[in-house]
Amino acid sequence: MRALGVDPGTLATGYGIVDMKGNRLTHVGHGVIKTSPGAPLAARLVQIHQELVEVIAKYKPDEAGVENVFHAKNAQSALKLGHARGVILLAIELAGIPMEEYMPLQVKSAVVGYGKADKQQVQQMVMRLLALDKKAPTDASDALAVAICHSQSRGLKRAVDLASLSRRRR
Amino acid sequence: MRALGVDPGTLATGYGIVDMKGNRLTHVGHGVIKTSPGAPLAARLVQIHQELVEVIAKYKPDEAGVENVFHAKNAQSALKLGHARGVILLAIELAGIPMEEYMPLQVKSAVVGYGKADKQQVQQMVMRLLALDKKAPTDASDALAVAICHSQSRGLKRAVDLASLSRRRR
Repeated sequence: MRALGVDPGTLATGYGIVDMKGNRLTHVGHGVIKTSPGAPLAARLVQIHQELVEVIAKYKPDEAGVENVFHAKNAQSALKLGHARGVILLAIELAGIPMEEYMPLQVKSAVVGYGKADKQQVQQMVMRLLALDKKAPTDASDALAVAICHSQSRGLKRAVDLASLSRRRR
Repeated sequence: MRALGVDPGTLATGYGIVDMKGNRLTHVGHGVIKTSPGAPLAARLVQIHQELVEVIAKYKPDEAGVENVFHAKNAQSALKLGHARGVILLAIELAGIPMEEYMPLQVKSAVVGYGKADKQQVQQMVMRLLALDKKAPTDASDALAVAICHSQSRGLKRAVDLASLSRRRR
């Protein structure tokens, strides 16, 4: 199962792709969609949307995880972030890819085992779990962490489904 | 000049189209894109985006005005509204239509002459200005008000440009 993870932002949107076979995770790719702060918001949204469409076309993920937020600094920053998330969810949904949303706490717990881990700890752990030669930029490693979190939660779900199936068969 | 006005919302997005020739405003069309509250957010965003793409293809506006917000109730409602605005700005920008954003205060001042007018006053005034037989639904009349506001502000800008041009010619 190939999972796409996305960490949305109007200035920097990270993405990461991992494969999971059994319990084995493999790194496939990652990157950051950076937009110019001086550009009009609408132009930045087009860039985020189109680059993500290209990422999906290139890597063909089976499923996707997108980082959610619960507490935004204020209404204005939440509104801005919402714009980026809107065009991201649109790209994933238009590609027909099943998607889950994850809170930062869930992602950090899944990857570092500690819900209040900082970006550097996530970056270190992502590098170790995916056997990367060097650290990915923090926006991309956050996105890879979302992809790992999604893969693990799907793996767990499948294991539970199989166990209950074999129990019913007995 | 044909203007599209949009009043964004995740559950109801109003749109309205008006033509302006000289100082004369004519009603062209309006409607409300309603999504199901039970549907997943991503599916609702696809619906808003695609219906607006169809509206643009049908009415071929020259320009667009989109209502902005300054104060949201809270970060969560701002985030949600941001999602809808994101896919709306994307549709307009992808169609290559020049766009302006207007605060509710600007829209109400332009249409009713009073920045704190309520939705019913806007509805009444839109019906009168566009000589409608009956009231448009409030979401649609808000969108028509944005289209009127945009048309007037563009008309004013052109008049100023022409005046300064003729002054320079003198």
